[in-house]
Amino acid sequence: MGINWSERIAQGAREMSSSAIRDLLKLTVQPEMISFAGGLPAPELFPSEEIGAACARALAETPAAALQYGPTEGHGPLRELIASWMSDLGMQASTGQVLITSGSQQALDMIGKLLIDPGAPIAVENPTYLGALQAWQPYRPQLLPLPMDDCGLDVDALESLLAAGAHPRFLYVVSSFQNPTGVTLAPERRRALVELAARYRLPIIEDDPYGELYYEGVRATPLAAIDCELHGELRHVIYLSTFSKLLTPGLRVGWIVAPPALIDKLGQVKQGLDLHTGSLAQVAAYLTCRDGLLDHHVPVLRATYGHRRDAMLAAMESGMPAGVRWTRPTGGMFLWVSLPEGWDSAELLGRAITHQVAFVPGRTFYPASDVTNTLRLNFSYSSPELIAVGVARLAAVARDYAPGGLPQL
Amino acid sequence: MGINWSERIAQGAREMSSSAIRDLLKLTVQPEMISFAGGLPAPELFPSEEIGAACARALAETPAAALQYGPTEGHGPLRELIASWMSDLGMQASTGQVLITSGSQQALDMIGKLLIDPGAPIAVENPTYLGALQAWQPYRPQLLPLPMDDCGLDVDALESLLAAGAHPRFLYVVSSFQNPTGVTLAPERRRALVELAARYRLPIIEDDPYGELYYEGVRATPLAAIDCELHGELRHVIYLSTFSKLLTPGLRVGWIVAPPALIDKLGQVKQGLDLHTGSLAQVAAYLTCRDGLLDHHVPVLRATYGHRRDAMLAAMESGMPAGVRWTRPTGGMFLWVSLPEGWDSAELLGRAITHQVAFVPGRTFYPASDVTNTLRLNFSYSSPELIAVGVARLAAVARDYAPGGLPQL
Repeated sequence: MGINWSERIAQGAREMSSSAIRDLLKLTVQPEMISFAGGLPAPELFPSEEIGAACARALAETPAAALQYGPTEGHGPLRELIASWMSDLGMQASTGQVLITSGSQQALDMIGKLLIDPGAPIAVENPTYLGALQAWQPYRPQLLPLPMDDCGLDVDALESLLAAGAHPRFLYVVSSFQNPTGVTLAPERRRALVELAARYRLPIIEDDPYGELYYEGVRATPLAAIDCELHGELRHVIYLSTFSKLLTPGLRVGWIVAPPALIDKLGQVKQGLDLHTGSLAQVAAYLTCRDGLLDHHVPVLRATYGHRRDAMLAAMESGMPAGVRWTRPTGGMFLWVSLPEGWDSAELLGRAITHQVAFVPGRTFYPASDVTNTLRLNFSYSSPELIAVGVARLAAVARDYAPGGLPQL
Repeated sequence: MGINWSERIAQGAREMSSSAIRDLLKLTVQPEMISFAGGLPAPELFPSEEIGAACARALAETPAAALQYGPTEGHGPLRELIASWMSDLGMQASTGQVLITSGSQQALDMIGKLLIDPGAPIAVENPTYLGALQAWQPYRPQLLPLPMDDCGLDVDALESLLAAGAHPRFLYVVSSFQNPTGVTLAPERRRALVELAARYRLPIIEDDPYGELYYEGVRATPLAAIDCELHGELRHVIYLSTFSKLLTPGLRVGWIVAPPALIDKLGQVKQGLDLHTGSLAQVAAYLTCRDGLLDHHVPVLRATYGHRRDAMLAAMESGMPAGVRWTRPTGGMFLWVSLPEGWDSAELLGRAITHQVAFVPGRTFYPASDVTNTLRLNFSYSSPELIAVGVARLAAVARDYAPGGLPQL
């Protein structure tokens, strides 16, 4: 009867499966649930009035730019604005080196299409961003997971790998406030990493969606800026970022800054994907930024999220049983929790959900590992009050937890 | 010095090149140029006020739905609205069978990722939509081009191919007012094609961006509707369409209607591509359609574009030299022109541009062919007055044309 579609699926798509995160999000929309699962920014902080005003202005003043087909590489004034911003961060980036993408997720897919042949090795942090693993799975790379600690990627381990003759197509790093661990690559490691990349001609994909969301100290210098400082131009790093965490995710506007030799090819790849990113969203992002929205909005995000992080750290400290450890991120949106050996965070989640609190088990972030005792907590989405209640619930579940036992209802 | 990027490009991306159409568009932005090259809708008809009002309402009433991360499958109310619309067209489509895409171009990429293994044969019209060829090139299919005539795809030729043992992964058809030829698949061929697909279990990708833009008669019945009529449900056809030609392209909102067995997998593919399509654009498309915009806007498009088609046909008739032939499409946005044997449309374009008129040479639309004497003319973008002037310029260039000779300046 008809077509057996499951027989027709291409090899690259066969092993794809739904994201555990997104499936979980579907389960945790009950009103009483306190969810630390999603990686969502706080919707009550969305600058919806400013975005509305920008849309109105764009449609009144430049309706063709806002509604017609546009250039694959992106809206010219927005590329220019981003190039100037990135130059302020230390990248020597011309407008021509900036390509607008439909969120950073599309940039990851583009990188996969551009650089991954089936079976080719790529080096990733362990654990790493789940969306990158999902984007690249259809291109069927061989994943080389690298260890991390509280200072980020273990650069010495990477050097050993390279010295032993490995030739990864690239290294993927979320350099600041990593998703999922919240950990930031330390300054001295950043420099060592770029020098290593130059020595071994190793391309680095630097994913930096959270870099501006620091709650202590100063903004970390992107690897891309260090590459420019050391080599006079962007040579070894492809830099990705996005407006999703700074304005709103729903616009789906991100960007790539790449060495000049790659821009044409990236444009060709993007053209086949969606012709171009939404015009109205690009013009709205441009107008709000041009008018200085980020200058006053990002400090509000930093203050609010910093306060939420503090609330979560305080609640963890006061409630969690001995043997549970967690990271103390200086920015971003996530805490990473390590349970005692032998505990299973997926099992813990089952119990937590019955107590109306949710998180993401860590297993899904490891490219190849059977680590079962970690989990990710988001602190950007919930108010400090809800964070206190939610972590108290979770701590109670953890205190009652006996691995393999029945849920304590 | 640094990385030799061209050595690092994955095999699938190596043969990609920039679209001739988009490169041409860059050349033809001079103010005096009359361009029939792009496939652009008329910007003066964009319902920018209605879209502005919808954005304002969305941001005021449901800011989270308009700005937050959203479901990969699309905004629920929009999927529901499209499912109901598609059911009116004869598809038995549940909301769950509708998936929102970032324009139809993304749907094409998703189809490639889902169904094409390297070297796998796929059957396409000859000529066919360039954007499909570009989307699929990285998946490296073997293209099986099928002949067409004034009634669309030659279904008998497809039957011979299948009877001879070919097993294409799918057939790709732009069923109404095809890009580039303007030709529509005749009703009796539609039925024969769906019956053939059922007999051979051949998936059909039906791309239907222009179906509503008919200027004579009635809307053609989609292959997807015939599949439902014959088999009680959608079994053999994956249907693609878009708001790009009915509202505006800049929103980048399209959709797929697929057999239920494919929806989960399509969602997984889309998740890796961009998480989801722009939220604000989806809500704006939903609100304008819910409030009945298409009911009064699409008739305006039909009247305006029909008038422009008439203007182009009249100008061709009165100006073109003997031996030049063209299609007489009953809808859509394009005329397809066949020059006398031995003429080269790329050479003609070089001369036309010096006379301030542009078009797209046909060569680029053939998956595998050395046809050089065809070209595509767009009639939706320019006013009837500009069409008359532009076609007169083109006709003068054609009358002066001597294959291989020097431009007549």
